[in-house]
Amino acid sequence: MAHHAVTPHEGKLLVLTPGLGAVATTFVAGVEMVRQGAGQPFGSLSQMQTIRLGARSENRTPLIRDFCDIAPLGDLEFGAWDVHAADAYDAALHAGVIDKHELAPMESFLRTVKPMEAAFDQQYVRRLDGPNVKPEGTKKEWAEALRADIRRRLDETGAARAVMVWCGSTEVYLRPAPCHETVEAFEKGLEDDDPAISPSQLYAYAAIMEGVPYANGAPNLSADVPALEQLAEEKGVPLAGKDFKTGQTLMKTILAPGMKARMLGVNGWFSTNILGNRDGEILDDADSFRAKEVTKTGVLDSILQPDVYPDLYEDLYHKVRINYYPPRGDEKEGWDNIDIFGWLGYKMQIKVDFLCRDSILAAPIVLDLALFLDLAARAGRSGVQEWLSFYFKSPHVEVGHVPEHDLFIQHVRLKNTLRVMMGEEPLTHLSENDEIYENADAS
Amino acid sequence: MAHHAVTPHEGKLLVLTPGLGAVATTFVAGVEMVRQGAGQPFGSLSQMQTIRLGARSENRTPLIRDFCDIAPLGDLEFGAWDVHAADAYDAALHAGVIDKHELAPMESFLRTVKPMEAAFDQQYVRRLDGPNVKPEGTKKEWAEALRADIRRRLDETGAARAVMVWCGSTEVYLRPAPCHETVEAFEKGLEDDDPAISPSQLYAYAAIMEGVPYANGAPNLSADVPALEQLAEEKGVPLAGKDFKTGQTLMKTILAPGMKARMLGVNGWFSTNILGNRDGEILDDADSFRAKEVTKTGVLDSILQPDVYPDLYEDLYHKVRINYYPPRGDEKEGWDNIDIFGWLGYKMQIKVDFLCRDSILAAPIVLDLALFLDLAARAGRSGVQEWLSFYFKSPHVEVGHVPEHDLFIQHVRLKNTLRVMMGEEPLTHLSENDEIYENADAS
Amino acid sequence: MAHHAVTPHEGKLLVLTPGLGAVATTFVAGVEMVRQGAGQPFGSLSQMQTIRLGARSENRTPLIRDFCDIAPLGDLEFGAWDVHAADAYDAALHAGVIDKHELAPMESFLRTVKPMEAAFDQQYVRRLDGPNVKPEGTKKEWAEALRADIRRRLDETGAARAVMVWCGSTEVYLRPAPCHETVEAFEKGLEDDDPAISPSQLYAYAAIMEGVPYANGAPNLSADVPALEQLAEEKGVPLAGKDFKTGQTLMKTILAPGMKARMLGVNGWFSTNILGNRDGEILDDADSFRAKEVTKTGVLDSILQPDVYPDLYEDLYHKVRINYYPPRGDEKEGWDNIDIFGWLGYKMQIKVDFLCRDSILAAPIVLDLALFLDLAARAGRSGVQEWLSFYFKSPHVEVGHVPEHDLFIQHVRLKNTLRVMMGEEPLTHLSENDEIYENADAS
Amino acid sequence: MAHHAVTPHEGKLLVLTPGLGAVATTFVAGVEMVRQGAGQPFGSLSQMQTIRLGARSENRTPLIRDFCDIAPLGDLEFGAWDVHAADAYDAALHAGVIDKHELAPMESFLRTVKPMEAAFDQQYVRRLDGPNVKPEGTKKEWAEALRADIRRRLDETGAARAVMVWCGSTEVYLRPAPCHETVEAFEKGLEDDDPAISPSQLYAYAAIMEGVPYANGAPNLSADVPALEQLAEEKGVPLAGKDFKTGQTLMKTILAPGMKARMLGVNGWFSTNILGNRDGEILDDADSFRAKEVTKTGVLDSILQPDVYPDLYEDLYHKVRINYYPPRGDEKEGWDNIDIFGWLGYKMQIKVDFLCRDSILAAPIVLDLALFLDLAARAGRSGVQEWLSFYFKSPHVEVGHVPEHDLFIQHVRLKNTLRVMMGEEPLTHLSENDEIYENADAS
Repeated sequence: MAHHAVTPHEGKLLVLTPGLGAVATTFVAGVEMVRQGAGQPFGSLSQMQTIRLGARSENRTPLIRDFCDIAPLGDLEFGAWDVHAADAYDAALHAGVIDKHELAPMESFLRTVKPMEAAFDQQYVRRLDGPNVKPEGTKKEWAEALRADIRRRLDETGAARAVMVWCGSTEVYLRPAPCHETVEAFEKGLEDDDPAISPSQLYAYAAIMEGVPYANGAPNLSADVPALEQLAEEKGVPLAGKDFKTGQTLMKTILAPGMKARMLGVNGWFSTNILGNRDGEILDDADSFRAKEVTKTGVLDSILQPDVYPDLYEDLYHKVRINYYPPRGDEKEGWDNIDIFGWLGYKMQIKVDFLCRDSILAAPIVLDLALFLDLAARAGRSGVQEWLSFYFKSPHVEVGHVPEHDLFIQHVRLKNTLRVMMGEEPLTHLSENDEIYENADAS
Repeated sequence: MAHHAVTPHEGKLLVLTPGLGAVATTFVAGVEMVRQGAGQPFGSLSQMQTIRLGARSENRTPLIRDFCDIAPLGDLEFGAWDVHAADAYDAALHAGVIDKHELAPMESFLRTVKPMEAAFDQQYVRRLDGPNVKPEGTKKEWAEALRADIRRRLDETGAARAVMVWCGSTEVYLRPAPCHETVEAFEKGLEDDDPAISPSQLYAYAAIMEGVPYANGAPNLSADVPALEQLAEEKGVPLAGKDFKTGQTLMKTILAPGMKARMLGVNGWFSTNILGNRDGEILDDADSFRAKEVTKTGVLDSILQPDVYPDLYEDLYHKVRINYYPPRGDEKEGWDNIDIFGWLGYKMQIKVDFLCRDSILAAPIVLDLALFLDLAARAGRSGVQEWLSFYFKSPHVEVGHVPEHDLFIQHVRLKNTLRVMMGEEPLTHLSENDEIYENADAS
Repeated sequence: MAHHAVTPHEGKLLVLTPGLGAVATTFVAGVEMVRQGAGQPFGSLSQMQTIRLGARSENRTPLIRDFCDIAPLGDLEFGAWDVHAADAYDAALHAGVIDKHELAPMESFLRTVKPMEAAFDQQYVRRLDGPNVKPEGTKKEWAEALRADIRRRLDETGAARAVMVWCGSTEVYLRPAPCHETVEAFEKGLEDDDPAISPSQLYAYAAIMEGVPYANGAPNLSADVPALEQLAEEKGVPLAGKDFKTGQTLMKTILAPGMKARMLGVNGWFSTNILGNRDGEILDDADSFRAKEVTKTGVLDSILQPDVYPDLYEDLYHKVRINYYPPRGDEKEGWDNIDIFGWLGYKMQIKVDFLCRDSILAAPIVLDLALFLDLAARAGRSGVQEWLSFYFKSPHVEVGHVPEHDLFIQHVRLKNTLRVMMGEEPLTHLSENDEIYENADAS
Repeated sequence: MAHHAVTPHEGKLLVLTPGLGAVATTFVAGVEMVRQGAGQPFGSLSQMQTIRLGARSENRTPLIRDFCDIAPLGDLEFGAWDVHAADAYDAALHAGVIDKHELAPMESFLRTVKPMEAAFDQQYVRRLDGPNVKPEGTKKEWAEALRADIRRRLDETGAARAVMVWCGSTEVYLRPAPCHETVEAFEKGLEDDDPAISPSQLYAYAAIMEGVPYANGAPNLSADVPALEQLAEEKGVPLAGKDFKTGQTLMKTILAPGMKARMLGVNGWFSTNILGNRDGEILDDADSFRAKEVTKTGVLDSILQPDVYPDLYEDLYHKVRINYYPPRGDEKEGWDNIDIFGWLGYKMQIKVDFLCRDSILAAPIVLDLALFLDLAARAGRSGVQEWLSFYFKSPHVEVGHVPEHDLFIQHVRLKNTLRVMMGEEPLTHLSENDEIYENADAS
């Protein structure tokens, strides 16, 4: 449990986002609004949550941002890639998440974030297209171009360090292939233009090669292959993924632990989503949905443990549907029907209708991941950062590890890791007089 | 953390319920159905949940019922009081919770549970009345009559020990009065027929005096007064309360911790219930509802900590409504609308419709409380058992303690207390490699 | 079926609203936005609906506004009374219904609508108060002051005619009293300051005396008393009421006829509302709610005819709740649970969640009523206009008539009355070859 | 408007159902329960609804069953075909719609209804199979075998007349083909085994050839082709279809007319269903769903008339999803989200959750159709009976006619046709004093 000293933050931090759509612009514009005092970063643990340190009697409960040596918002610089050439202001207007009257005062700043040419190939994202793409070339050439982009943007902004958070679209479902097994095989694949290597893997590769921590907000395979994990270890780069936990899955990972705690059986869980943004349009394509479906359906099994509780959860019929529905734009709606049973098998039902906003839920995750990955890098951590599972639908874990989906366990783990990273004791003292439980912040 | 040795269970355990309505009959009939192999005790931790012991490598995860020295279902005997003279079979038929065709094979057994005369006074439960009540007398006389009832029922059943779980109606809202301050004042109040002493307090008093652990499933003040807490300590009797956490509040204590973990603000929470059983009819009376309302509304403040997070939770408008609605009988429906906000203050909504069954959710709680209180007594524990907060809307805590409402923290506490009580280590090892988190059962 | 010739509209039409809150400002600002081409009058039959004339073969289906001689929007002038002195611009901003950025271009116009002093007495509207009220005086004096207000506003605006639509608050529930029986008794009551005469009755009286048609958008008794009906007949003034049919009741009058058409039984209908505007605050007062409750609960009996269909509807348990819930402002939410049964008595449930906007639904009703009442007056119609029941929760009908609540029947009636008023045949030809049914517009 | 005299009912009426699954057994068992006094035929107009005759002053409002010369329930006999050999008792038990304890007293009767061998070919209903099928043969041979079945069952039961109501599965979507154009082409197609002729068309053909009225409860093309319409005219046989209007579509045809009456715009309507019966399993096949989807999506266009009201309804995005979800069995749940807008374009939402029971809603439709088609035949009516549109999702109309989907217009039409058929005047008198509107039964 010895901890590495954390190299203090110094200089600016560049946050790079492949994708400059609804999520990325909501993140960038929001950070600027917070800096200008025009909004608050609700939803962000790094900015708003407290953390208890030591014994209760010590009465130390600082904000996480005061406790951890994370970069202050004032230090953030931004860079992005997108198939559309619209700058962050126009892209934010188009996304329609933040009210145009609130965006107006941010215009001059947002105009400075102009997307670099995307490494894009439509066979991986069927229903998307745009003109702002890199000229044809091999995957190797594209990867090198991305590395050059990173260095150039560091130069332009004068930033000392960078992190990359994938805010782009969901790619079609890809299975791990031989070229994903080792660094060598991967680099050969780049040269051979192996179709098993998707664009998001080029970004991940470029980031790692440049020593830039990488987080993956989509269900794409991306860095979740042995080759890139190994490369990240070698280069000392932290990784996190996959798929931001924003709407219905967030709700699922809140409710399912509750059902299990009370030993209520579940024999059916039907989840349907309607959403009208670019994400929705892409997921209307069956192959793209397949990738999403995989990340969405493992959640319940992992939480409910049907192997341990067969009578309660073995027969659970779980179905997830995503429907493109333009009238709503970014205002996603998730409807869940849960069929449960209790004492003697008597049936009950829970229906949850979540009128959420995809990008509003995702933006603070981008912020937290950027700041925590940068911290992790300065703390000398590399490879898969399982303690960031809290933010993901489909936690990227090391080979052989079982992902943890229970939001409450993920939360304990996140905060204890921060404690340890900063040289504090994790909360361990569960005495019989239960003192720590009296403060919900214990978690 | 030294633990008392637990006196082994031996002989039968008598479970006494003031009230033989929907909850109590569903409990009694259900236990018998489980004993006859005609049903499973879903919803009961004591019967179905596992508990991890020691380091993960030890691979010890027994069922709680195999780990703790709790009484086996075969040892249970039953006794009850009710204002109606109907035996448990007729009362269960009337309640309509368990299907009459499933009840039929239990008839001969259920006929043996005939309610004793209730200590009942309509000024405390306005919309209830019935003929099976004790003759007029002072509160002192009624308390003595209840003690005699307990002893007689122990004789009749040949049981070695007893526990009492209040399954009766909600009494009108009463504030603590001087007679509740000390044992002496309370006993004087009994003699003087002090109106501040309600019938449920007579039952609690009688139980404690007979060395019988007492749990309170309604929001009644009951044992939650210094006089009875002190008496319980003196007599070495464990107590638990108040108000079974069954429907909407259960859902609230699952959802609110999730909102807080993610730093999502909440500015409105509207909860309405429709229910058509006897409970609903009584709560249609404003004074009775007042008691319920108090136990229901504290929950959010305690979980969300508006003092720590004023920007997120200070303006929360919380409203709870209960509506008597006969068409549904025991099939309560709880509808919640939750107004939340995220990044930059953008608004979202969550609607939850819970088609639940009051008595189906309550019956396994009665069972767990009976078995765990009996275990606690044999472990030498007395007074308020805060570790049973998991089961209650309004946890009865010692003077000066803040109740914990977060279901997930309550759950950790319950299981660690069981570990300690049985001489095992509580789960304490939160190492940086996070091994325990890989198993959701860690909680 | 002979029709009076309609006196052509000429000159401006002044629309007077007691109340300049959310509904009235949404109406006034909306009319101006439509006139400026900045919005469309969705929800208004007079502006948007077509009407079929003659046999289908004639192929005549004009817009109602082209068919009937109603005043064009360009002719409308506005006047109002309110206890707050804020002009229509400030009041609209405060109401928060129309986005402030959409209101801005209307500012100069809206500033011209300044509320006259209200005839206000807090004993009739408990939770409302404000400084812009008439000086103390007898009810007779207030009534005369209101008449003078009407004349002055006609002068100021140069309007040729006026109509008045009550857009004020719900008054406490009042039963008809002797002073409501005859014109003489009513006028004596004015002089004697009879407490049975509420302020809304002063407005109604003033309107009728000035020859101004009057519609009542609240459940207040107002003009629904023999004295004022008789006075309206004498003065040749049309009346309509009561209580705009906007949210949950609108939904009820759509759904209930559907259930009945299919002979589906209903044994429970629970309706709850949450709303946070001034209306909600006032209805949180039990006496004010009483008036609303009466207008809301008669609806189902009238539609479902439990006397004719006792097996289907006799046991219907109907409960309506209104809850003040500030987080939502004007964005009312109505939640209905409907317990129905079909073949052999098997049960089903319908849940409807209506996220509506009170003032958005009410504003086009104000417009239609103003235009249709003005038309009716010019057509020589006086007294209660039952054909406008379509717009009301609690249709004001002549003594001895049974109100019709079925929205679809109300709709047929409205349009046939327009046909007749304009000298066309009502749709009567239901031939066996059913030709008219092929066009939904037949209704 | 001259009406044919109705030949009086005499002798028994045989109701034949292709399909002996949930719908058919619920119908057959329900009729028997009603005959035995063990249930009521809720949901059936023919049994429970009244009908007003003549002027209101005549005060004549009999039950439809007393007014029309329909066959009494006591006269009904039953016959069925199914791929499973289970008799009506076993099939009803398997369907699980009617409680087994309620079915028990009907056992001996239900055992007498044994399914005849089905004319079945899996290429038309992919996810269904069973052993009780006719031996291989040409379509011509199967059609002849079905005709023989009809005659034999008439003999067995001693019935004087028969009607056939398709209660079988949804077939894959088929487009009209040349063989559907004329009787000659169709009969040649039978001989040639034309793949464009589906099994349900064999049943329809057999029925018509035997002079048996035919109604189609599924979206199958079936009798909705010129060849069979023409044959029905020739043989004097009435037809009706398609697809019983039971759950979500029923709700849609109730709500949409309400939106339109009030000129509320609709820009999105998302409908999803979960159901776990055989029907759900079959519709999980994309081709089968296609047939259903076509019948479900035309509804809104027809009611809302986007051509007449482009600003209100032209942009309506309508999506319908059906999901196989076994946990519920026959208890279908339909969830609708409706995005509407009002005054100035401000948005509102309606969510409807219908916990319905497919077969409970369908069974009374089978009964009504059987009785009304038999009546129509005795009244000398032949060909497509558009007046029965009330019962169908996708009304079968004559070539060139536009189907009417508005439930309320369909209802008026149904009752006026009954009036005319029985020699009464249709309700035509819409006088200015509106007398008929005072009685909701006018419709």
